[in-house]
Amino acid sequence: MVGVSEANNGVEWRVTVSEGSSVKIEHGTGFLSRAWLGLAGFLLAMKMKLLGFASKVWNIGADDPRKVIHGVKVGLALSLVSLFYYTRPLYDGVGGTAIWAVMTVVVVFEFSVGGCLCKGFNRATATLTGGTLALGFHYLADTSGKTFEPIIIGVSMFLLGSAATFSRFIPLIKDRFDYGITIFILTFSFVSVSGYRVEHLVTMAQQRLSTIAIGVSICFCICIFICPVWAGGDLHFLIVRNMEKLATSLEGLVANYFDDDDEENENEKSPSKTCQQYKCVLNSKGAEDSLAKLAIWEPAHGLFSFKHPWQQYLKIGVALRRCAYCVETLNGCINSDIQAPQYVKKHLNEVCTKVSLEAAKVLKETANSIKSMTKSPCIDSMIEEMNISVEELHTALRTLPNKKVTSSSQGIETMSFIEALPIIPVTSLLIEISTRVEGVVDSVEELAELASFKTSEIEKHEQSNEEQGKVVTIEVQQV
Amino acid sequence: MVGVSEANNGVEWRVTVSEGSSVKIEHGTGFLSRAWLGLAGFLLAMKMKLLGFASKVWNIGADDPRKVIHGVKVGLALSLVSLFYYTRPLYDGVGGTAIWAVMTVVVVFEFSVGGCLCKGFNRATATLTGGTLALGFHYLADTSGKTFEPIIIGVSMFLLGSAATFSRFIPLIKDRFDYGITIFILTFSFVSVSGYRVEHLVTMAQQRLSTIAIGVSICFCICIFICPVWAGGDLHFLIVRNMEKLATSLEGLVANYFDDDDEENENEKSPSKTCQQYKCVLNSKGAEDSLAKLAIWEPAHGLFSFKHPWQQYLKIGVALRRCAYCVETLNGCINSDIQAPQYVKKHLNEVCTKVSLEAAKVLKETANSIKSMTKSPCIDSMIEEMNISVEELHTALRTLPNKKVTSSSQGIETMSFIEALPIIPVTSLLIEISTRVEGVVDSVEELAELASFKTSEIEKHEQSNEEQGKVVTIEVQQV
Repeated sequence: MVGVSEANNGVEWRVTVSEGSSVKIEHGTGFLSRAWLGLAGFLLAMKMKLLGFASKVWNIGADDPRKVIHGVKVGLALSLVSLFYYTRPLYDGVGGTAIWAVMTVVVVFEFSVGGCLCKGFNRATATLTGGTLALGFHYLADTSGKTFEPIIIGVSMFLLGSAATFSRFIPLIKDRFDYGITIFILTFSFVSVSGYRVEHLVTMAQQRLSTIAIGVSICFCICIFICPVWAGGDLHFLIVRNMEKLATSLEGLVANYFDDDDEENENEKSPSKTCQQYKCVLNSKGAEDSLAKLAIWEPAHGLFSFKHPWQQYLKIGVALRRCAYCVETLNGCINSDIQAPQYVKKHLNEVCTKVSLEAAKVLKETANSIKSMTKSPCIDSMIEEMNISVEELHTALRTLPNKKVTSSSQGIETMSFIEALPIIPVTSLLIEISTRVEGVVDSVEELAELASFKTSEIEKHEQSNEEQGKVVTIEVQQV
Repeated sequence: MVGVSEANNGVEWRVTVSEGSSVKIEHGTGFLSRAWLGLAGFLLAMKMKLLGFASKVWNIGADDPRKVIHGVKVGLALSLVSLFYYTRPLYDGVGGTAIWAVMTVVVVFEFSVGGCLCKGFNRATATLTGGTLALGFHYLADTSGKTFEPIIIGVSMFLLGSAATFSRFIPLIKDRFDYGITIFILTFSFVSVSGYRVEHLVTMAQQRLSTIAIGVSICFCICIFICPVWAGGDLHFLIVRNMEKLATSLEGLVANYFDDDDEENENEKSPSKTCQQYKCVLNSKGAEDSLAKLAIWEPAHGLFSFKHPWQQYLKIGVALRRCAYCVETLNGCINSDIQAPQYVKKHLNEVCTKVSLEAAKVLKETANSIKSMTKSPCIDSMIEEMNISVEELHTALRTLPNKKVTSSSQGIETMSFIEALPIIPVTSLLIEISTRVEGVVDSVEELAELASFKTSEIEKHEQSNEEQGKVVTIEVQQV
């Protein structure tokens, strides 16, 4: 019967069991009917759960088809690498260790190119260094006689295992070579331990390296040449999107605050979603950090050079979050119980909205500048306009107590301090937000320097005009 | 020469090269001296770098000795498992696949018990399911003739590899079985591919399972019985510490704000560190999420039962961060350029400080309540006191414009609106913070319900008194 309540969510077939009829059946027929009803309910519940799960899975694929493609790519790489087992000549070439190639594909193939390169590089170098070191220790153990052999191997495994494991806690190593350390310990243990039994250690090492090379190159080729997913590009557009979301939220929240009483019902639902977009910015630190870690492994692609300053994106992310903290607090103020009366709001409506729009405009322009990787020609004038509107807000606040108010009951009187009180935090947060938006612009300008963004066409034109002499400027002044 | 400037940081031996003497040597002696000087400088620079790195590594170990112990534990597990290779009888028992036991130890041994159990469980079940499924497909391929055999195996690898890889994007699977999926694909490919060559598949599967079982049990034993690191405990104390940090920051920031001009020099350095502690709270989402993921795998330990509501800690974390966002904005306000004059601050000093102290007290009490896992008997009265102080702040604000001010130049006059302006956001943020602190308390109370926190001794005593009748109450009233 579990499914009955869930069945009401609109599906093709349902077992409608009103309370009365259910009782009727229980009394009228017997065990079989009840069992059948129970089974039907159970099956229905299962079907609903499965359908729900399937639609969830479908949405994951529909939201980001690259995930589906990634699955297909892994399947393809696996099938390709298994050719090494099916085809005799190749099989004989790399010996019984061809399974390492399959293993390499399974373990190294990551969603992004950066992840794949990072793991492939780690696996290859760690296998090489771990193997070499183990061979050295093995030689040492071999020459020191039967008694010391197991002791030397045991102690070396203990010491290297401990040291390598501890080294994973060092930030730099954790960020770049975490997987490599695992493989280093693995290879070292593998070679030392099997060295005690197997004779042809060097041949085995060669075989293992060649199979890993085969696996890694299949991974790299498929990962880079079939619908590549670049961690760097993802980071780039994540920052751009976050910036746009923040701008939209800021505009929406302030517009909402001042529109509140005029069209209460209309605005209650639709803007809430766009206004809450800033929450993505608050929680994106983890994604940014991991993307930046992978992006440094990627070769030059699209607009990005090999030495693209990915770390600077993290700084922009920090500046954006500083902004978002203020927007979060602003959201709290706006949804607070104590609100300024409508006539107070009306007095500051225009200036506040202007500040929010100007700040949002600056953010959007900066986002566009990153997106197109060109220096914005008008960002300085936009910041100036934002600062002018902030000045206007300051002035409006200063003149607030002298404002004459037409109140329906008591005629004309000056605005009271207490009534103005709830709106002041909103204004001061807007001012703080505008300061922090400048912080975002500064960090983006640093990025523009580091990544040598193009100068936009308009600015180029202006610069060439400046070079032609002051004639143009004078003309403009005359106009 | 690189090292010369770095050498001044106080080391045992240094090559002091004043500008004059350097020139002298260059002219006086020849290439050899210069080369020697260069080499010495280079070696010194290398030594400084190494020393710096060593001290960093030392600090990592000194800050959290559990990390060093973890390294030793891994070394121990590796040495133990290699016994299976050194000891003949055991070696014969599990066959040439004993290397899988070493591999299992290297891959499964994680820092926390939760991580170790999660990986061990994943590895064991994934090997079992992957192996069984591969055997099924292998049987199917075997019965359908030589022509179809490679096709069936190839297609099944492609389909299962693709589907399993895609399933890693489903949040639930990603959170709990990410590693299992890798091992599933690995085992499936391994068994299908080698099934084409190797005859005794079932024996191999048995061997692999038994070696993995050996590796996993060694990991589990060492991980749980030698200085265990519990992810759940870490999460528990991370939340407690964050709560305390937030309380300290809040107290410190407000105290700093009002003390500012009185003892400027004294307060400039010392409190800044404690005041910035809230930043840990802003950035702890990632750590909380990953600890909670691991904690669900852990058995009952210490104060925590098997079904301890770890997810609720994440909710407390969200509530704490909501608080921290406000504290961040408060920090911005306090460090803003425009400040209220000292006499305005003085008027609100007492009430504001009281609100901050009360809110911090509530946070600390809540932290203590979580730490000791007992319901706090006095939290309600503390919240009441906090709300009373908020009310007092409201009243102080309302009466602010009527306050008479003794200004040295103009005698007594009423406080001006403009001068009071910069302090108002601070007060309104304090009020907002107190609301959000209540949110934290609510989420902790939910935790107390879910984890059935003990009632504290004092409360128990009160309750038993209540049960004994009203005699005691009357006595108390008389006193």
